[in-house]
Amino acid sequence: MQQLMLVTIITEHVLRERILDDIRKAGANGFTLTEVYGEGTRGIRASTWQGNNVKIETLVAPDVAERIVERLSDTYFEHFAVIVYRTLVDVVRGTKFL
Amino acid sequence: MQQLMLVTIITEHVLRERILDDIRKAGANGFTLTEVYGEGTRGIRASTWQGNNVKIETLVAPDVAERIVERLSDTYFEHFAVIVYRTLVDVVRGTKFL
Amino acid sequence: MQQLMLVTIITEHVLRERILDDIRKAGANGFTLTEVYGEGTRGIRASTWQGNNVKIETLVAPDVAERIVERLSDTYFEHFAVIVYRTLVDVVRGTKFL
Repeated sequence: MQQLMLVTIITEHVLRERILDDIRKAGANGFTLTEVYGEGTRGIRASTWQGNNVKIETLVAPDVAERIVERLSDTYFEHFAVIVYRTLVDVVRGTKFL
Repeated sequence: MQQLMLVTIITEHVLRERILDDIRKAGANGFTLTEVYGEGTRGIRASTWQGNNVKIETLVAPDVAERIVERLSDTYFEHFAVIVYRTLVDVVRGTKFL
Repeated sequence: MQQLMLVTIITEHVLRERILDDIRKAGANGFTLTEVYGEGTRGIRASTWQGNNVKIETLVAPDVAERIVERLSDTYFEHFAVIVYRTLVDVVRGTKFL
């Protein structure tokens, strides 16, 4: 068992490829995509949004999680509906994710 | 980073709008829906159920999580197939969810 | 509230029924399936894979989680693209999952 960070990103479809590129550059070795529907508040202006979204999940080491958070936060949070959170999880044979 | 509760609800489609209304009234500012398939035991009678379900996820402060849990538990648990659990997560710029 | 393990398994569709059978035999009383898309590294050879996958989630007691992990790890990890991780969660009326 390896303790890793599960980083979850919920975003508009239009950002999918850019964000996947961002997380790869930050050091993620893989990801899972799920089609979801969401409603919430968007960006710093707290305007509401709703619609089809994609959930991106990736299992990474803490330092990679940190880089993902910084990169996405700096790039998208002001103008796009992006949610990012991380959960501590125990991964079976998790060393292959490092 | 803000430590928040991710409340996950898995339920029959027929309850979707009612439960979304419940979580909004409890103070949730947004949610994500995912189509899922489930099998398990239902309510207090432990009869089995299976079929298409919806997963509702919402990021909320601990007191809102508490209200969601109480409301759903009191209203649905006896007669419907509803699963509710909460996970502690770290949310980027999480104050907008409060 | 009951503290339980949420065991998440991401795998190729071809293994779905076998793994559901495995987790039932390990003691799981229910599960949720989600259609996902994934990319990552596969097995011990670290070859890459990508494609449609299924996410299997089950709420179980720690000892059942342990049996699931052992069984899946021993059976599939060498030759298949299987990800398994566990998260500690608080489940409402969780005793029905035990």
